Amino acid sequence: MNLADSYVIGVDYGTLSGRAVVVRVSDGTELADAAYPYPHAVLTDALPDGGPQLPPEWALQVPRDYVQVLQHAVPEAVRKAGIDPARVVGLATDFTACTMVPVTADGVPLCEQPRFANRPHAYVKLWRHHAAQAQADRINELATERGEPWLSRYGGLISSEWEFAKGLQVLEEDPEVYAAMEHWVEAADWIVWQLTGSYVRNACTAGYKGIYQDGRYPSADFLAALNPDFAGFVTDKLEHRIGQLGDSAGTLSAQAAAWTGLPEGIAVAVGNVDAHVTAPAAKAVEPGQMVAIMGTSTCHVMSAEGPADVPGMCGAVDGGIVDGLWGFEAGQSGVGDIFGWFVRTCVPPAYVSAAAERGLDVHQYLTEVASRQAIGEHGLLALDWHSGNRSVLVDHELSGVFVGQTLATKPEDMYRALLEATAFGTRVIVEAFRDSGVPVRELTVAGGLLKNRLLMQIYCDVLNMPISVIASEQGPALGSAIHAAVAAGAYPDIRTAAEAMGNVQRNAYLPDPENARAYQQLFEEYRTLHDYFGRGGNNVMHRLKAMRRAAVAGRTTSPIGVSS
Amino acid sequence: MNLADSYVIGVDYGTLSGRAVVVRVSDGTELADAAYPYPHAVLTDALPDGGPQLPPEWALQVPRDYVQVLQHAVPEAVRKAGIDPARVVGLATDFTACTMVPVTADGVPLCEQPRFANRPHAYVKLWRHHAAQAQADRINELATERGEPWLSRYGGLISSEWEFAKGLQVLEEDPEVYAAMEHWVEAADWIVWQLTGSYVRNACTAGYKGIYQDGRYPSADFLAALNPDFAGFVTDKLEHRIGQLGDSAGTLSAQAAAWTGLPEGIAVAVGNVDAHVTAPAAKAVEPGQMVAIMGTSTCHVMSAEGPADVPGMCGAVDGGIVDGLWGFEAGQSGVGDIFGWFVRTCVPPAYVSAAAERGLDVHQYLTEVASRQAIGEHGLLALDWHSGNRSVLVDHELSGVFVGQTLATKPEDMYRALLEATAFGTRVIVEAFRDSGVPVRELTVAGGLLKNRLLMQIYCDVLNMPISVIASEQGPALGSAIHAAVAAGAYPDIRTAAEAMGNVQRNAYLPDPENARAYQQLFEEYRTLHDYFGRGGNNVMHRLKAMRRAAVAGRTTSPIGVSS
Repeated sequence: MNLADSYVIGVDYGTLSGRAVVVRVSDGTELADAAYPYPHAVLTDALPDGGPQLPPEWALQVPRDYVQVLQHAVPEAVRKAGIDPARVVGLATDFTACTMVPVTADGVPLCEQPRFANRPHAYVKLWRHHAAQAQADRINELATERGEPWLSRYGGLISSEWEFAKGLQVLEEDPEVYAAMEHWVEAADWIVWQLTGSYVRNACTAGYKGIYQDGRYPSADFLAALNPDFAGFVTDKLEHRIGQLGDSAGTLSAQAAAWTGLPEGIAVAVGNVDAHVTAPAAKAVEPGQMVAIMGTSTCHVMSAEGPADVPGMCGAVDGGIVDGLWGFEAGQSGVGDIFGWFVRTCVPPAYVSAAAERGLDVHQYLTEVASRQAIGEHGLLALDWHSGNRSVLVDHELSGVFVGQTLATKPEDMYRALLEATAFGTRVIVEAFRDSGVPVRELTVAGGLLKNRLLMQIYCDVLNMPISVIASEQGPALGSAIHAAVAAGAYPDIRTAAEAMGNVQRNAYLPDPENARAYQQLFEEYRTLHDYFGRGGNNVMHRLKAMRRAAVAGRTTSPIGVSS
Repeated sequence: MNLADSYVIGVDYGTLSGRAVVVRVSDGTELADAAYPYPHAVLTDALPDGGPQLPPEWALQVPRDYVQVLQHAVPEAVRKAGIDPARVVGLATDFTACTMVPVTADGVPLCEQPRFANRPHAYVKLWRHHAAQAQADRINELATERGEPWLSRYGGLISSEWEFAKGLQVLEEDPEVYAAMEHWVEAADWIVWQLTGSYVRNACTAGYKGIYQDGRYPSADFLAALNPDFAGFVTDKLEHRIGQLGDSAGTLSAQAAAWTGLPEGIAVAVGNVDAHVTAPAAKAVEPGQMVAIMGTSTCHVMSAEGPADVPGMCGAVDGGIVDGLWGFEAGQSGVGDIFGWFVRTCVPPAYVSAAAERGLDVHQYLTEVASRQAIGEHGLLALDWHSGNRSVLVDHELSGVFVGQTLATKPEDMYRALLEATAFGTRVIVEAFRDSGVPVRELTVAGGLLKNRLLMQIYCDVLNMPISVIASEQGPALGSAIHAAVAAGAYPDIRTAAEAMGNVQRNAYLPDPENARAYQQLFEEYRTLHDYFGRGGNNVMHRLKAMRRAAVAGRTTSPIGVSS
């Protein structure tokens, strides 16, 4: 293989769109990329085409949207790159997780069957579907009570975002859909299935989201204790051949070749998760190198020599990022999503006009105005839990807080306080790793938010450590391309491929000692509120969510599982 | 006097404008009214005409603006009423309080002297100037330590809004202005001085804001212990003849007759406070009849048979509302101000457009959308302390809180949560009175916010008691007119005049038992957060304000007392 004239395609499936990038195998040069927004975006209020309404905390997607990314973004990227498609030797994908598709034996999503088109549980449950908290609570309670050995690998808590809680919700709210679903498939694997025609379960999500530890899932005995009808969940819906990261899952089918315009028969890598796949793109595959992929949410991934129990982490998985090391994952459920919510919901016309006049988007404008402030000048403190808290509290019933608003508080004050709150949230995570004997030696930021220089400096000052940044605008897609290169046999393993194809700017930001001191004070205040609202000092957030659910239920007459 | 063909003028000085109303003496009919907005509104950022900037928490006004109300609003109201000005027999005014004017011996405001035009301390300190908190803290600490007998009459705390804290701030930050000020005058009395040419101190503010109890001010000994140079504050700056409410302060001077177009020599009543003067307008002058005057802020006034110590109340004053009873005052520093801040600062363009398309202002639009919600549906809880907390915590270092925001939170959710927060704040006050043996038997709402029917029903359900509403859109101005009628000798006393001229709609709102139950739960959550942030559980708000001051001070080079 002539590496300098061979190319791979990485496709990154995000929350709102999919993005394809064309990468040269020899050195990781990104020749072109193209994005395709999901036509249905995220369903939070109702099913499409006048279908039934959805209760609070739901977040669904339409699987056909993912296929359209292959049909549009891949050929467009290849065309823009100006390469001969015949020179493409491999393709790999990464996905949000845990995003789950209920399918038939041959991989057809249940929502595509007319009889289930009006059934919310037949759709894809996006990672940030948070309506299975009651099920997650029971899983945690029972696992704690029984002393299940896998629990500590997940920081002591199984998330409502993961496949067990979401699967149990399907069973209990719509048993017909549950019965019809022959596989409960990670979208990361479903898309590879569409590409190759064969279903391979990737080791990364099996370990991180599927509670697959030491070669085993939770026992049928445990599942039966949750709900007798759930006893067969693993054997009937989950269990399947597991593929290691960087391995080939199969080859591009004729149908997928037609969709993408790529050669039939090229290597398709085992599916992967957007966060984890970014580590090689950022050359962060050695122990202690944490990558924070900052977009709508933030995922933190880091490898270490062996397992460790870090409270509130999302999981530790042998080979979860690269072969031979243990992969750790932590996360913040809402980051860019929170800034986006604020800009959409809380910014008055005068600011929107002022931004437009300056040729800036509202984020850029607020960032610019906020960057003139001294630390603490806005007088605010926020908790960044608008989408719950994934690490270290693992509680999606938590919610956002603002303290300190006055009649003089301006939009840029609140915006900056939200930026800072997410930085404090990251620091809580970094400290949890440090305190558990898995120190973070380097922090590299990837993802769309690294473009915000104020945000990066705030993180740097809050963490009081240098920050490296990935030198690619398509970190996950580049990481997928690296996996494609390994699957195609161009490199012997991910570490070698990362060294050749990854790209990072080390120590791009350095902390300012005076800023770090000022933020130390605010961080201590954050920590106090964090523990008060998040560790049982005042469970008001849980009660407010319960009141909200009850109030909405009192106004809705049709139960959610049945079409109206 | 033919009462049916005699008229009185009430002039109400609010936070942003003055409003004159023409009232028939016989039955209180309001013939016409006219408003005049203060040209300089409230100075919070800088002095006028490019003068020096102001630190956080400052709120100043320009006294000449008050005179312009006499020149414009009074003649316009008389013209609109179509009456012969010769039939006007009296005039009375009411004012925000504690709003303080530093003047020379002949009543000229110091800011009108060229040498002080650039000195912030030479201007009027509006009631909501909150920059004297440090002085208030020392007053409270020392009074507690010495066991000063007057302290319990103010719920145990002297506010930073009142004349002692504000006066001490002038002394300590600009001794030159302090030395030049021959009287430290309530604006309520300063405007009467402009009308009559003579200075009479009204019993209401002397008692409520001037710590005048049992015929005495705080002792020189106490003042000297605060600051040796403050020893003569009472004798040099405050002490003056005190006039009782409803008495005549003098007669309209030739100059004021020229300003207003009214007959020279008619009675001008002793000055009064906007809240207290509203009680007779609402026919609420009997023990246990509380009036809540709801505008930018809310004042609660109520008469009782005798004194009582209500924690965190603003004051109990013998004859403070009507002769022969003890007047009680409590308050919420921010109410309409908070809603206004939210609408200006936190509402996105789509909502502003939608309101305009419907021909509604944004308040009306948000109210309409929010009124469709079930209680608790928004999942939010707010603390209404954006302008501090006057009762029952008496702490202007407190600030606003939102708990429960999610990515699905909408502007109407936050708006409704703020409406509810102010209702919870009122309930805390009503319960404090009840628990101190001064039960609230009837609650009558006056002020601009009574137009919001959703807000009224929320108050009614939160308090779980009927709400009466004043049947006048100009409650304070009507109350002033009632005082003018008594000063002019048309009635023997305020109670008699109130019976003839006041106007109220009893039990206009009745509580819904189911709503009351739902709000009981939210109120308990409010109470928990109230005590956590307000009673020492977590003094983060104080520390955030201190950080804010330090941050701003670090960026400002010119000290505040000296012109730049």
